[in-house]
Amino acid sequence: MATAEVADPRIEKPLDAVVRITTSNICGSDLHPYEGRAPLEEGMVLGHENMGVVVEAGAGVDRITVGDRVSVPFNIACGTCRNCGAGWTNACLRANPSGRPTAGYGSPMMGPYRGGQAEFLRVPWADFNLLRLPGGSEHENDFTMLSDVFPTGYHAAVLAGVEPGSSVAVFGAGPVGLMAAHSAMLRGAPRVFVVDKEPDRLALAEKFDAVPVDFSAQDPTEVLTEATGGAGVDCGIEAVGYQAHDAAGHQHPEMVMDKLVEAVRSTGRIGVVGVYNPEDPGAENENAQEGRIGFDYGSVFDRNITLGHGQCPVKRYNRQLRDLVVHGRARPGLIVSHELSLDDTAHGYDQFDKRVDGWTKVLLHPAAA
Amino acid sequence: MATAEVADPRIEKPLDAVVRITTSNICGSDLHPYEGRAPLEEGMVLGHENMGVVVEAGAGVDRITVGDRVSVPFNIACGTCRNCGAGWTNACLRANPSGRPTAGYGSPMMGPYRGGQAEFLRVPWADFNLLRLPGGSEHENDFTMLSDVFPTGYHAAVLAGVEPGSSVAVFGAGPVGLMAAHSAMLRGAPRVFVVDKEPDRLALAEKFDAVPVDFSAQDPTEVLTEATGGAGVDCGIEAVGYQAHDAAGHQHPEMVMDKLVEAVRSTGRIGVVGVYNPEDPGAENENAQEGRIGFDYGSVFDRNITLGHGQCPVKRYNRQLRDLVVHGRARPGLIVSHELSLDDTAHGYDQFDKRVDGWTKVLLHPAAA
Amino acid sequence: MATAEVADPRIEKPLDAVVRITTSNICGSDLHPYEGRAPLEEGMVLGHENMGVVVEAGAGVDRITVGDRVSVPFNIACGTCRNCGAGWTNACLRANPSGRPTAGYGSPMMGPYRGGQAEFLRVPWADFNLLRLPGGSEHENDFTMLSDVFPTGYHAAVLAGVEPGSSVAVFGAGPVGLMAAHSAMLRGAPRVFVVDKEPDRLALAEKFDAVPVDFSAQDPTEVLTEATGGAGVDCGIEAVGYQAHDAAGHQHPEMVMDKLVEAVRSTGRIGVVGVYNPEDPGAENENAQEGRIGFDYGSVFDRNITLGHGQCPVKRYNRQLRDLVVHGRARPGLIVSHELSLDDTAHGYDQFDKRVDGWTKVLLHPAAA
Amino acid sequence: MATAEVADPRIEKPLDAVVRITTSNICGSDLHPYEGRAPLEEGMVLGHENMGVVVEAGAGVDRITVGDRVSVPFNIACGTCRNCGAGWTNACLRANPSGRPTAGYGSPMMGPYRGGQAEFLRVPWADFNLLRLPGGSEHENDFTMLSDVFPTGYHAAVLAGVEPGSSVAVFGAGPVGLMAAHSAMLRGAPRVFVVDKEPDRLALAEKFDAVPVDFSAQDPTEVLTEATGGAGVDCGIEAVGYQAHDAAGHQHPEMVMDKLVEAVRSTGRIGVVGVYNPEDPGAENENAQEGRIGFDYGSVFDRNITLGHGQCPVKRYNRQLRDLVVHGRARPGLIVSHELSLDDTAHGYDQFDKRVDGWTKVLLHPAAA
Repeated sequence: MATAEVADPRIEKPLDAVVRITTSNICGSDLHPYEGRAPLEEGMVLGHENMGVVVEAGAGVDRITVGDRVSVPFNIACGTCRNCGAGWTNACLRANPSGRPTAGYGSPMMGPYRGGQAEFLRVPWADFNLLRLPGGSEHENDFTMLSDVFPTGYHAAVLAGVEPGSSVAVFGAGPVGLMAAHSAMLRGAPRVFVVDKEPDRLALAEKFDAVPVDFSAQDPTEVLTEATGGAGVDCGIEAVGYQAHDAAGHQHPEMVMDKLVEAVRSTGRIGVVGVYNPEDPGAENENAQEGRIGFDYGSVFDRNITLGHGQCPVKRYNRQLRDLVVHGRARPGLIVSHELSLDDTAHGYDQFDKRVDGWTKVLLHPAAA
Repeated sequence: MATAEVADPRIEKPLDAVVRITTSNICGSDLHPYEGRAPLEEGMVLGHENMGVVVEAGAGVDRITVGDRVSVPFNIACGTCRNCGAGWTNACLRANPSGRPTAGYGSPMMGPYRGGQAEFLRVPWADFNLLRLPGGSEHENDFTMLSDVFPTGYHAAVLAGVEPGSSVAVFGAGPVGLMAAHSAMLRGAPRVFVVDKEPDRLALAEKFDAVPVDFSAQDPTEVLTEATGGAGVDCGIEAVGYQAHDAAGHQHPEMVMDKLVEAVRSTGRIGVVGVYNPEDPGAENENAQEGRIGFDYGSVFDRNITLGHGQCPVKRYNRQLRDLVVHGRARPGLIVSHELSLDDTAHGYDQFDKRVDGWTKVLLHPAAA
Repeated sequence: MATAEVADPRIEKPLDAVVRITTSNICGSDLHPYEGRAPLEEGMVLGHENMGVVVEAGAGVDRITVGDRVSVPFNIACGTCRNCGAGWTNACLRANPSGRPTAGYGSPMMGPYRGGQAEFLRVPWADFNLLRLPGGSEHENDFTMLSDVFPTGYHAAVLAGVEPGSSVAVFGAGPVGLMAAHSAMLRGAPRVFVVDKEPDRLALAEKFDAVPVDFSAQDPTEVLTEATGGAGVDCGIEAVGYQAHDAAGHQHPEMVMDKLVEAVRSTGRIGVVGVYNPEDPGAENENAQEGRIGFDYGSVFDRNITLGHGQCPVKRYNRQLRDLVVHGRARPGLIVSHELSLDDTAHGYDQFDKRVDGWTKVLLHPAAA
Repeated sequence: MATAEVADPRIEKPLDAVVRITTSNICGSDLHPYEGRAPLEEGMVLGHENMGVVVEAGAGVDRITVGDRVSVPFNIACGTCRNCGAGWTNACLRANPSGRPTAGYGSPMMGPYRGGQAEFLRVPWADFNLLRLPGGSEHENDFTMLSDVFPTGYHAAVLAGVEPGSSVAVFGAGPVGLMAAHSAMLRGAPRVFVVDKEPDRLALAEKFDAVPVDFSAQDPTEVLTEATGGAGVDCGIEAVGYQAHDAAGHQHPEMVMDKLVEAVRSTGRIGVVGVYNPEDPGAENENAQEGRIGFDYGSVFDRNITLGHGQCPVKRYNRQLRDLVVHGRARPGLIVSHELSLDDTAHGYDQFDKRVDGWTKVLLHPAAA
């Protein structure tokens, strides 16, 4: 975590750029290495939700120029492999030296790329990866959501098939779930239900004009079934992941999927962006340790439900979402609860890790925009 | 099973038609009630893969006319509910009096509609449900596949995202798996692998120009990984279902899904048309009894795989598939192994149920075409 | 126009219903027969934008029931032909006895079906065609737009490929153009430009949060090019048709298409719902008389523009649009300028035909909702 | 045309590669500058249909390596602009210094990039643009179609909405039209009609299992209408362009579009890859000189026809088409009529330009594969 002790990044390859970070967000997934549950390489810097200003560009960079204000997608993509060519920049086949088909900054198993909770960040294949933003400092707290949570929430809405008129249930009101609810509305959903039990998160859901459903007080299946005249919602969004736990605090990795399968109508779709892992050594039973999540798959088949999964290819959406911010239609920055200087990083992690009430989304500002 | 003892069907509602059956196929799913594992109502007649000639039409029928040679989709659809309007005729919201959103002929839990392994069949909402065929008797054995297995196999290929250039793995070489392989090729897949262990079925796969993979002799994961340079196939098709068993004969409901997840490339798709049920009282363990299939879902998420499921909306595809038959491009009748008169029905069931070698697909011909 | 002199409609076929009309709108296309430019059959009643309450249903009607409040799509569709099955209810192959693949109420060349500017309306294939609305009288002025102009505007946005983030130019601020602008925003477009020259219409465009462009004062190409940094808008919508005229009042059937081709970016799309006819005997030159519109097609090719055309299949969208109204997201009734009783029909036509300022959209209320 | 007199290309930028050309095809559009109708820059080399072996790569090239056998798409694309990111590599916003949103090799108005009818070719943004082929010399005559005509024909089939079961009419049996017919079948069309009047071309159409229609002997509208029971074909493909001429040799730029509009069914699609230009100074009338093609647009609207246009984004399809060749499903090389050495280029142009019978497609082989 000692970000000051590593040498500043510099151009290593002709397609690299170096970005001076103006904002780097703390993400829930940063807590895994923070808590020691996921190993990071020696000298690694956290931070995959980054934006800033380009200060240096390699000899092969011909689109982005020094001085550009940019958003950095959390996926690192080569731009020329088959998956990148097909728009799956989250599944780049070449960026991760381990051969794993995905790469990113400052994250376990995502390659040797240092994160942005620091003054500077090296960005590989800069022309392909960087999104240009309007200069200046306007919309900083909205634009900083373009690197991960806003596109990730939007991807969930796409995977779930949300279109104008759709009824939608989002499970999980963390930053991604809230962005999924916001995105569902931007895609024309007139009714979006957000299921969680934390009052601060449910209150934020209401700020986005969603209908909050407190699962510690109500059975979401009943609420959703009644609201849809018995049919179920058209679209379900999973924004919780394998660490789902019930109101009493017990972990049930299959719980959210079971609830979604109950909530979604026949022929509906579920978009899953809450994380499930192939291996989870700390899980309670052998199946879950091997990534086997025994949810009600028989009903998935019986009711013709389509399931879409996985990390978001940020570049597929971030330009359009940027424009929605610029023209005042989207306001993702509404989820920001705290803004800290780089010196306060440790404090931010501590409060966020303890889930202190109201610490929803924390931004670090290494430099002024 | 005593089809002769029930009264002939007749027009009951203005939109009904009565079809004189020229061919009704025995389907693997007919074996469940045949074996007593699934209860049928008193007086029910089996047979949901039907074709024939219209002999009577209700007062409200204005498209189909007496004398039309027709294929009868196995789904019964009202044509006017939301799901029918959206092309999900397999999930009709109105046809099944039980309220279950799906209806069909001669099948458990699919409504009170008698099947077609008889001389005549009553078809509700006849204008909406019936597909007109060229008159005469040509292509009878091909056209009879239009009621279920050919569109079902084709639907699997659609759910799996097969398009020109795709590499495809089909698990299960029964009639549906073979039709999926045939369909994948009709959709432009240059390489289709079919995984099974029965020699007669693998031989049929070869007849359709697919590459047979005998899983009792080879590990399909190894074969498929090597054939794709390590990447995995683009598209996976599940045509087995919850009764999957290993080479030694033990049932493993999660086995095929696990193998497909291993075989399919990152960002790929799997189309599941092999049946999984919400309840399976006879299953070996409690999870499977509740429809919980603990396959490697963590890897599904990790590798961005999309899963599509369920019964085929036959009407979405049968016109186009008919035309492929008419113009000599498709030849689904290649899977027919036996043709029997209605009097030989009992013998046909007996041999098919015993899985006698070479009894792949059995047709009953109550009347001449 | 003498609506009182014809006998009330009644059930003629088993699938008919009779609707007591609560609202029937006057449409710009009603002016063609009103002005005598398009011939109507003897005894024909105008009115294809209808809603009301079902008062009688034929013996084969099994979904809709007497007492249902319903919207009546302007297309008449059989529900069982190939085009209806594919969701092209505007191109029904069976409803028009002339063989022309399209049918509707009270319109020239759309079949023998009387319109709804009367107390009652006969609706063929009622189960397929009618959309159920919430009972009572709420949202009457919004719901009445579901029969034509709201779905037609929405269809334009779909043909134009509008999605979240798109920039859009709508040419024509009549009811359809305004609904197209509203629809584009419901589909997530942050910026919608509406081009017209009538101040009352441009003012309405602003009410829908669109950017008005007065082409009598500004060159729309300049405005749109500058607003998009030189690139052009992503999506163009044609809501004017062959009767386009310049600020000086001269007719130029190719004018709007030319302007759209200039305005739309390379690889963009244009949705054309303004009407062009195969024959236009009154046109100024021979080409236009034969439906030949010599717009800049070379640039369409050169810039990879896709063009979608034609009448809207109302049923494809009206359910979703209804739900957007019910949940307060859409407000199409904002365009209503006048509400008249059936007795005032002649006055309404007179004012509307003279294009008296402010007569944007006129509703007739034969009966209370 | 004196290709020997210019200096060999070399690496100019870090992302360049140099390819030793093994095959470069002569394309019909090469005849425009050959005949002097389109001006080429001093020192320009023709040839935009190229393949070969990489002999040198710039410092920023990290995917392609020296020794790779590659196909070179005729579009030059930067890989990082908005259009490239959206898969429209034919409309790259950055590659052409003139600002025109499209670039290519050896072609008028496509930028300063020399063509491949020479020993070596410089390829900008090599990692993005080049498609790797299996090493060796196998399938050379098939693979050489991957740079332009095969994907262009395939794009036409995509624009026309060809899917399994579709009936298709292709106008023009030049190389692109033949590739469109072949592609339509690879996409599952059981019946493809090819309309032309040249016997050698119609004979080739038959080799691809298409139905030849000689428009000098039959009215294609009659043939197509009768073959489809009066409905018209589902999909139309325009592979002729503005230089269409009737059987008597008179040019009619609107002729092919008119015939297609007559041939295509209501709600059908037409894919236009035959070239129409914004300016055509040599055209017979003023409208055509300005790119105004007065075809029957009124019927396009009336019958809900969708029109797609323009150059093919080769990279969207070439990988999949390569795999169809590798696995024996596609055989585009069937159109090759002549193979020449570079020394015989002038002779090839002469014969091809004179449209000598049987000179369908000419390959130049500067080096052995």
